[in-house]
Amino acid sequence: MDIQSLTRQLHIQNDSKIVMLVADGLGGLPQQPGGLTELETASTPNFDALAKQAVCGSSIPVAPGISPGSGPGHLGLFGYDPIEHLIGRGALEATGIGFELQQGDVAIRCNFCTLDAQGNITDRRAGRIPTEESAPLAEMLRQVKIPDVELFVEPVKEHRFVVVFRGTGPNQGKLGGNVHDTDPQATGVPPLDPVATDPDSEKTVEVAKEFIVQARQLLSDQPKANACTLRGISAKPSLPSYQQVYGLRAAAIAVYPMYKGLAQLAGMDIVGQAKTLDEQMEVLRENWSQYDFFFIHFKYTDSTGEDGNFEAKVKRTEEVDACVPKILELGPDVLIVTGDHSTPSMLSAHSWHPVPTLLWAKHCRPDRCETFGEAECLQGGLGQFEAKYLMSLALANAGKLGKYGA
Amino acid sequence: MDIQSLTRQLHIQNDSKIVMLVADGLGGLPQQPGGLTELETASTPNFDALAKQAVCGSSIPVAPGISPGSGPGHLGLFGYDPIEHLIGRGALEATGIGFELQQGDVAIRCNFCTLDAQGNITDRRAGRIPTEESAPLAEMLRQVKIPDVELFVEPVKEHRFVVVFRGTGPNQGKLGGNVHDTDPQATGVPPLDPVATDPDSEKTVEVAKEFIVQARQLLSDQPKANACTLRGISAKPSLPSYQQVYGLRAAAIAVYPMYKGLAQLAGMDIVGQAKTLDEQMEVLRENWSQYDFFFIHFKYTDSTGEDGNFEAKVKRTEEVDACVPKILELGPDVLIVTGDHSTPSMLSAHSWHPVPTLLWAKHCRPDRCETFGEAECLQGGLGQFEAKYLMSLALANAGKLGKYGA
Repeated sequence: MDIQSLTRQLHIQNDSKIVMLVADGLGGLPQQPGGLTELETASTPNFDALAKQAVCGSSIPVAPGISPGSGPGHLGLFGYDPIEHLIGRGALEATGIGFELQQGDVAIRCNFCTLDAQGNITDRRAGRIPTEESAPLAEMLRQVKIPDVELFVEPVKEHRFVVVFRGTGPNQGKLGGNVHDTDPQATGVPPLDPVATDPDSEKTVEVAKEFIVQARQLLSDQPKANACTLRGISAKPSLPSYQQVYGLRAAAIAVYPMYKGLAQLAGMDIVGQAKTLDEQMEVLRENWSQYDFFFIHFKYTDSTGEDGNFEAKVKRTEEVDACVPKILELGPDVLIVTGDHSTPSMLSAHSWHPVPTLLWAKHCRPDRCETFGEAECLQGGLGQFEAKYLMSLALANAGKLGKYGA
Repeated sequence: MDIQSLTRQLHIQNDSKIVMLVADGLGGLPQQPGGLTELETASTPNFDALAKQAVCGSSIPVAPGISPGSGPGHLGLFGYDPIEHLIGRGALEATGIGFELQQGDVAIRCNFCTLDAQGNITDRRAGRIPTEESAPLAEMLRQVKIPDVELFVEPVKEHRFVVVFRGTGPNQGKLGGNVHDTDPQATGVPPLDPVATDPDSEKTVEVAKEFIVQARQLLSDQPKANACTLRGISAKPSLPSYQQVYGLRAAAIAVYPMYKGLAQLAGMDIVGQAKTLDEQMEVLRENWSQYDFFFIHFKYTDSTGEDGNFEAKVKRTEEVDACVPKILELGPDVLIVTGDHSTPSMLSAHSWHPVPTLLWAKHCRPDRCETFGEAECLQGGLGQFEAKYLMSLALANAGKLGKYGA
């Protein structure tokens, strides 16, 4: 169901404020059978106090059993159907390094690779060339010149870099984003030719071929990184904005470029330059009167989970809990605490497990949750719900949705 | 998912009887933090006894966060997707005053308004002219004559009346229902012209223009109500009938025209002329052998909620509870108790909160619900479910659905 088709019709303006506090990868697993999860182990007096008054539940980011990446995880929280609105990998990579994509841009994740004299790939990652060596090479590729295309090349890490094509003059708006990868996922064979999967991307294929040729010339003297492959070729996704679908002036307060970028794709303003959660709280306070909705992103519950460090994830969870009073001081009407997916430290990876979620507001219907944790949330009043419905619930609880039908 | 595409294939006939008892606006909220809802406060020994044996759950009328009107609320309970089958406001208003729409009819909510000498609106509601004055004016508009159109004008209340166009002769079946409102939602400007939003509604626009001209002539001497605006212009919705999608002979036992009308749109027979719940029980008994399905509508749990009267809603809830033994005496195979939405007296309005629901039948799988109330239903075996699935559950429990696939 396209919930945004309803919120688009029904949203109304008022002065209420919504805060969505996202502890990335919040959900977890016990370390041993019968044990507690990271969140259940952590001392979270503020979350627990909220949970007593809030309505709780378990958010399913995409669908049961599906472990989402950061893109679909956040799109779901922002109310966009993460199946319908897939962000291409190139666009996500560009977003993740802070590159601000414009409408019509085509973004590409590139790998440096090693070709032999016959043009066959001997190493798909150019010996995992270190960043100190690969970054200058990526910058050198800015010398590539293609008529009627503005070209951006940005180093990422090791063998990876990002290329963005921006059509100019006759090419403006003419570069489609649907082109197959050129990485054959094998060695001993040459890179694939780029192939368009729709007519609108034929021009992009021409541009990509020209880029590949010039890049090989520029890299011809390199011992390892003497060529490149193109992957995840994709246009900037076209998401309706928060203003359009919810009538919200929305602000994102994040530290990492990836999450700023995702919020920007949804039409949020990126405010402040906070580097710590304390600074994020300061930015929240400074911008309180200017916006209706605040997305606050905290990365370290995910990264500690990815590291497989249970204790560190517990500590990071307690750190997020401690910021709650600073949010409540500002008098939000709706406060949501959730994650974009689970990252159990037992798995050292994103997982499919539902995400403990609480929605605190004046007119929540009480449930029997007394603390904030995975098992407790199972008896919550939100039940198990698809993440994409969180925004309509937030709007309703903020008095920002009119009645549907007479 | 179109559940009716499955029930349509799978329904089978037997002698079992289903009763759906709808306490309008049943769900509520506590008056103060930590308190109980109206339903939880009410003494409902009969509901509680049913809940012990029944399967319980929380019904989501349309989607999380969406507060439905009576139209979508009931369509969901009747198993029609309330997004796909929206009843236009004109059709709902006509239905609400007991006008029996026919296929091809176009129904319009009209407002009397006041125009100045320049034709600009000075009052969009003609000074909220009292019904005693407006009703004779609406009846006067029956003098409008339009070739090949049968015209119906029915007073509603104060400045409101309903007009129905029914095409005859060459216009039969030619009047589309997709025309913009003529109410500009502002004063100091003239009413808008009616504009068709599809080619099939061009003829309706011609008819509407002619109606407006003749109405202004007839009303020209009126000090306040000297013109009218047209809103919610809509065709009779085309719902497949209960007989088609469920194989049910269905009867509606309601007091208010709106709910009789909604049931009629779903192809139910409207039986009896009960004015009280006791009389509704009498009508149920009298018609027991004639039908497979009975929709019983009780209005006052909603109206007391709308009035913000917690105590009165509690009392009305107890009144519905007291009718349960009279239903059970008749030996139903399936008894459902639910509401079309929540109407918490704290909000004095329809709300988005899920609706406590019980389904009592011989082969319910037991859950742990011991009483009937919002918090208790959260641990019920139906979980949180979309209202549109209630009918397939009812049919299954009545032994009226065959197996899907081999």
